[in-house]
Amino acid sequence: MLAEIITIGDEILIGQVVDTNSAWMGRELNKVGIKVKQITSVSDDAQHIVQALEEAKQRADVILITGGLGPTKDDITKLTLSKYFNMPLRRDEATLANVEAIFAKFNRPMIDVNIRQADVPDGCTVIQNKNGTAPCMWFEVQGKIYVSMPGVPFEMMYLMEDEILPRLKKTFSLPIIIHKTILTTGIGESFLAQQIEAIENSLPVHIKLAYLPKLGQVRLRLSAIGTNQQQLQDEVEHFAAQISSTIGQFVVADEDIPLEKAILNLMQSEKLTLSLAESCTGGYISHLFTQHAGSSAVFSGGAITYSNDLKESIVGVQHHTLTAYGAVSEQTVREMAAGAIRHFKTDYAIAVSGIAGPDGGTPEKPVGTVWIAVATKSETISKLFTFSNKRIQNIERSATAALTMLFNLLKQDLNKVHKKA
Amino acid sequence: MLAEIITIGDEILIGQVVDTNSAWMGRELNKVGIKVKQITSVSDDAQHIVQALEEAKQRADVILITGGLGPTKDDITKLTLSKYFNMPLRRDEATLANVEAIFAKFNRPMIDVNIRQADVPDGCTVIQNKNGTAPCMWFEVQGKIYVSMPGVPFEMMYLMEDEILPRLKKTFSLPIIIHKTILTTGIGESFLAQQIEAIENSLPVHIKLAYLPKLGQVRLRLSAIGTNQQQLQDEVEHFAAQISSTIGQFVVADEDIPLEKAILNLMQSEKLTLSLAESCTGGYISHLFTQHAGSSAVFSGGAITYSNDLKESIVGVQHHTLTAYGAVSEQTVREMAAGAIRHFKTDYAIAVSGIAGPDGGTPEKPVGTVWIAVATKSETISKLFTFSNKRIQNIERSATAALTMLFNLLKQDLNKVHKKA
Repeated sequence: MLAEIITIGDEILIGQVVDTNSAWMGRELNKVGIKVKQITSVSDDAQHIVQALEEAKQRADVILITGGLGPTKDDITKLTLSKYFNMPLRRDEATLANVEAIFAKFNRPMIDVNIRQADVPDGCTVIQNKNGTAPCMWFEVQGKIYVSMPGVPFEMMYLMEDEILPRLKKTFSLPIIIHKTILTTGIGESFLAQQIEAIENSLPVHIKLAYLPKLGQVRLRLSAIGTNQQQLQDEVEHFAAQISSTIGQFVVADEDIPLEKAILNLMQSEKLTLSLAESCTGGYISHLFTQHAGSSAVFSGGAITYSNDLKESIVGVQHHTLTAYGAVSEQTVREMAAGAIRHFKTDYAIAVSGIAGPDGGTPEKPVGTVWIAVATKSETISKLFTFSNKRIQNIERSATAALTMLFNLLKQDLNKVHKKA
Repeated sequence: MLAEIITIGDEILIGQVVDTNSAWMGRELNKVGIKVKQITSVSDDAQHIVQALEEAKQRADVILITGGLGPTKDDITKLTLSKYFNMPLRRDEATLANVEAIFAKFNRPMIDVNIRQADVPDGCTVIQNKNGTAPCMWFEVQGKIYVSMPGVPFEMMYLMEDEILPRLKKTFSLPIIIHKTILTTGIGESFLAQQIEAIENSLPVHIKLAYLPKLGQVRLRLSAIGTNQQQLQDEVEHFAAQISSTIGQFVVADEDIPLEKAILNLMQSEKLTLSLAESCTGGYISHLFTQHAGSSAVFSGGAITYSNDLKESIVGVQHHTLTAYGAVSEQTVREMAAGAIRHFKTDYAIAVSGIAGPDGGTPEKPVGTVWIAVATKSETISKLFTFSNKRIQNIERSATAALTMLFNLLKQDLNKVHKKA
């Protein structure tokens, strides 16, 4: 069963918004055994939308369309579908009631364009959108299914979860797709490939291995397609175990979770707590942790000590250290980490201080110079990194480096504890 | 001049990575007057890649291809292009030297797959990649240009900026595209449209207006295409000024910047400083500010007081307040904001405390309950929000709400100051 995603909107093509919807949809469709064959982004242009539909129906059984359903003039998806399927618009009373209810809830007057949100192509199945005024429309035409959804992420997500995926599962007899991901750090893609070459060569044709590198991490993904869930699961687990036993020292997690989530899981199981003292990463590492449900069991909080004053007052860096060595120095970052342990009363702490750029560099400390420390009550480890001259990249790379340092320290400490036990 | 972007990689189709490259490329291409007609994401499958190339060359003059150039087996872009253009692979000495230099720099041994990175289709122009081992390849075939680049964002970005865009500018005589964006908060898309309907109807055909709504904000984008830069600029400014004067009270910025950047600009011009005390947003708001170059002129830092202990010890919330009213309460969030002003010595402070979910809700305070306060030395404003049951969404909406509250308070305070002056 193949799907194609068509996103409609000039804002994606000119890069004013990043299309995050398609990745989410791809993930959810895969879980129910529907493979996304292609993702196509086209402009708010009727002829172009029609062309994309024509091409998509050659490739896919289900065509999922997002965007272009707003009440304003640049939104032409509904009108285009109405003409394409030769289904004139009719006023849908249930949709009108939904639009009216939404306006009543927010106590706002309705205007003509809002009422027109209730017009739908005569012949589609209308699916009410509880979170917005644009209805979702389901078309079955010549053996293909077309679904038009709003592009607003939370409206689309709720419609997919509650309405579209259950209907697709009912409509089709779906194959099963199993993915298994292994997250590694500290080894490059080609070296990983060399170490597991024999395993890769022994994979049956219905199991594929992919390498997904990203800033000092490589995720390995095994994907199996078939009809027998248990058998596929067993096969994938078998090969995953082979891979893990071959490259064990680089493995962070044997599931598809990010590095910080692997740390949270490990620390939670050991009942350990964490705090942060961030300077150049400016809250990014804390955000990485706290985006995960349940992070408060491990993450107590921390400080963003952007100014030198706050480095002294919140985490207790000595004034002399800052004047003698500077804010971006091994001495400062070690005091930040140790201060976080003391002031925030946690088992582990991360501290980062660097020059994210694009300005603020000097010949001795160019943009991209970052000191990172990880600490416990009894030890502090510090390391110097030299990244690039791009601010966002430096922030992200600093985060990955800090998380890797913390993960390695945790592993080492837990090995000691378990050896003693 | 039209371009098509083709991204190659199963990881995008199964949603394991979000395609951020294409938005960035769309933005950069637009700046030099190249319009992206379509973005197409296809799998690591030779036949599918060829089909995408066949379709793209019907639509576009330039086809930019990213991804599938890694050293591992699942990367087949280079081989596919070699066959598609009937250009057998040859070993490129300059590329080999580049690969060797990169391995020497990191002091790592080279293996056979690394050496094969230096094989290129005989007939393309090879552009060396200083940031990675996969070379960039430029093909000119039957009047169309095809460029194959690595999918790793920072490698692609550097190649586009330093190599591809300059070459495209040299090759084509490009039309000029001017965009102008107005950022608004506090008004819905359809009401905006109603208020500026007359202006929209008076736009000439070469100027388009688009509405880009996102979590309580709507960006209006005017786009003009033509050949006379100054004339286009004047026309766009003329209509932007008309729009701004009609909906002035909702306008945050008249350029394409996010809300937090508009705040940073405003505060920097007034020499004001800001600190944060974040609970449920967990560093996200601080990260929004600190991702921008120069934010340190305004943003001093702050605390992420996830635990109650840290709410007391870092920002001075009274123990009694927490036990009597709870961490998610008006009293607590007001003390957090006032505490941030006192402890972090800034002119303004934001404090957020809420239940991001998915767990932790109660009948009185369900998931999505968020208290936000903004404060100066002399006043504190607080507001209760009830968002959804989705964690990431609650964090993002809390951030937008907090930023909007701060922006409005700033505008109000500055109006008072300017009236006095």
